[in-house]
Amino acid sequence: MKSIKNYIAKKAETAKAVSLKLAITDTKTKNKALLKIADALVKNLAKIIDKNALDLKNAKKNSLSTALTDRLTLNNKRIEAMADGLRYIAKLNDPIGEVIEKTVRPNGLKIKKVRVPLGVIGIIYESRPNVTADSIGLCLKSGNCVVLRGGSEAINSNKILTKIICEAAYSNGIPEGCIQFVGETDRRIIAEMIRLSKYIDCIIPRGGEGLINYIRENSSVPVIAHGKGICHTYVDKYADVKMAVKISFNAKVQRPGVCNAMETLLVHKDIAGKFLPKIISEYKKAGVEIRGCARTREIVRDVKPATELDWYTEYLDLIISIKVVSSIDEAIAHIEKYGSHHSDAIVTGDRKIAERFLKEVDSAAVYRNASTRFTDGGEFGMGAEIGISTQKIHCRGPMGLRELTSYKFVVEGNGQIRE
Amino acid sequence: MKSIKNYIAKKAETAKAVSLKLAITDTKTKNKALLKIADALVKNLAKIIDKNALDLKNAKKNSLSTALTDRLTLNNKRIEAMADGLRYIAKLNDPIGEVIEKTVRPNGLKIKKVRVPLGVIGIIYESRPNVTADSIGLCLKSGNCVVLRGGSEAINSNKILTKIICEAAYSNGIPEGCIQFVGETDRRIIAEMIRLSKYIDCIIPRGGEGLINYIRENSSVPVIAHGKGICHTYVDKYADVKMAVKISFNAKVQRPGVCNAMETLLVHKDIAGKFLPKIISEYKKAGVEIRGCARTREIVRDVKPATELDWYTEYLDLIISIKVVSSIDEAIAHIEKYGSHHSDAIVTGDRKIAERFLKEVDSAAVYRNASTRFTDGGEFGMGAEIGISTQKIHCRGPMGLRELTSYKFVVEGNGQIRE
Repeated sequence: MKSIKNYIAKKAETAKAVSLKLAITDTKTKNKALLKIADALVKNLAKIIDKNALDLKNAKKNSLSTALTDRLTLNNKRIEAMADGLRYIAKLNDPIGEVIEKTVRPNGLKIKKVRVPLGVIGIIYESRPNVTADSIGLCLKSGNCVVLRGGSEAINSNKILTKIICEAAYSNGIPEGCIQFVGETDRRIIAEMIRLSKYIDCIIPRGGEGLINYIRENSSVPVIAHGKGICHTYVDKYADVKMAVKISFNAKVQRPGVCNAMETLLVHKDIAGKFLPKIISEYKKAGVEIRGCARTREIVRDVKPATELDWYTEYLDLIISIKVVSSIDEAIAHIEKYGSHHSDAIVTGDRKIAERFLKEVDSAAVYRNASTRFTDGGEFGMGAEIGISTQKIHCRGPMGLRELTSYKFVVEGNGQIRE
Repeated sequence: MKSIKNYIAKKAETAKAVSLKLAITDTKTKNKALLKIADALVKNLAKIIDKNALDLKNAKKNSLSTALTDRLTLNNKRIEAMADGLRYIAKLNDPIGEVIEKTVRPNGLKIKKVRVPLGVIGIIYESRPNVTADSIGLCLKSGNCVVLRGGSEAINSNKILTKIICEAAYSNGIPEGCIQFVGETDRRIIAEMIRLSKYIDCIIPRGGEGLINYIRENSSVPVIAHGKGICHTYVDKYADVKMAVKISFNAKVQRPGVCNAMETLLVHKDIAGKFLPKIISEYKKAGVEIRGCARTREIVRDVKPATELDWYTEYLDLIISIKVVSSIDEAIAHIEKYGSHHSDAIVTGDRKIAERFLKEVDSAAVYRNASTRFTDGGEFGMGAEIGISTQKIHCRGPMGLRELTSYKFVVEGNGQIRE
């Protein structure tokens, strides 16, 4: 136990010590290093795929699910996509040094609020090895050192990736030690890592709900969590039925396995008779399993009954729960009770009803007449993202480069003292 | 234990339930309520002072220190100052609803980033009853419900204050339940309160280091902490000696008991011979106890030796530690090792050296040629403040109304779906 504690503390301490150097590394150096890392990944395609094969072999041995095995798999295309991701990050504006506000006080003090890195970011993630490259790219560009603790099932892939990345980074001006990869897979490391508030400024967990809740409950390091997405679309009585069908179909079907996909469809009773048969017929054609409330099942008979548990469930699959509501109040109350404050949409032609929904629904992103699937750093014009925050502290919604920063006040005077 | 848990959970749950109502309460109503609360405090001066007398009697019985007893004491002037504080908050701009950014995406989606309240803020504080009124004022104005847990030594004062404030608030349009005062003084309540992440969005501890560290280590609710202030002034070799004396004197002496007062003076060796005798003579006249490093004591003999512990100490008193350094690198390294990342200043006439200091010192506020005493919401033009954050997550430096908020993305379309 002691040695595990020392092992991870040492890594975090090293990152902390070098973080002040990385914080003042200039944009040109960071961008050049990102491009060199991208090149190194492509140059070492074969080596990476070799090591990935070891993980895949273990996955088979351990009967990992098809979905997880797919996430774990690296091939030429996926490694090239990682490299392109890094090249894209190199092109984004450097948030560090940005003057967020400035003011001159009556006493002549010049005050600037200047963007700075957080310092050291701990990333705790599960099977996807591309998270390794993405996280390093975003952290380096935002001037943050990073301590990476990936899942044991991807350990061989992650080891070779970080080895290649570190070599390219450190030989291109990035201060040595900025990237700390946790090669030990002992799960007790997570428990130790989230108590290192002396060295780690922020923990970002990426993975299942269990992992995230465990970290939230036990971390003394501030956590920015990518929460789950129980997203709703509310089709109001003043909705354009055609638009409502298009949006509800897209939000559920276009990519059901992601957090901004819709899980529950709420429909105003006055439009349910017209709207539900149409959308349910579309869903059925696409193979969506439908679980409806009693009123839904009165309108479309061939639908499974939804249970209380359904309203709380993030399916991440071609399954949808549908509820007919009597008013916008009931819709908002449902979202507040069962939702996860991620992304929720209203489809309506009525300006006033839309405004109530947008104001009163307490979610990271609220939509009028659009699919919830747009909650995404790229779609919002923020560039790459490291996740989507469903909490309110520090940042909410897509987390891009700026969300990995803090600020400081830089005050210049000519001898001012406080009277 | 169970009943304590239920007691505090019930209060937090009530606050959470009503938080959505307060979040959409308009500015006019909030301002009017603040003014009415202020009036009510002044109207009930005698009643408040009566109850405060009970606390003062207990303080005497429990041999509370003179300093703490002073903090605890309410009189006409202090109650009127509380009321004025609320009137001042009423005049500040309402941060809620502010459009922080807006953009139209190529697909026509209109995205606005809109400021919203955090939700429910838990304030855990010690003896000063004015924190009760200040916190309620700032939380209400920023649309946040508040759960207040004050120190047991001020329980009678806090009870009457919250009673008067709640009556005035609820009869003037503030939704009932927004202000939850914890009347039980059992210390186990703190332990329970900081685990209520289901209902409380953020905990702000205000008090001694022990309390703050305990909460940081044990809270599952995100914490915004007002940390301690081990502030430095570095007098560079290119400093104007007269200015350096003026600033160093002010930073230490003007109000030594506050977090932005200087604790350690760093002096470049090349200017120490000229500067130290002057500042030490001024300090001595003001009754400041001086603890110096060996090099300081070579220059001014009549100085106590500083120990390693001194560099780590927040005196909050008329005591200063002084160290002679050989370079700006040594100064920056000292601040990094011993400081608390609060406020640190350089006095120098050299632009390049100043820039290095301002960039490399990792503190909430960094100063050139001014006193560290300016780190304050009012002095920075932010209006009232609820504390000064020394952490990097969420907010750093003075915490005013805006720092008590989050944001949401409001997205409006005309049928956009993700391809």
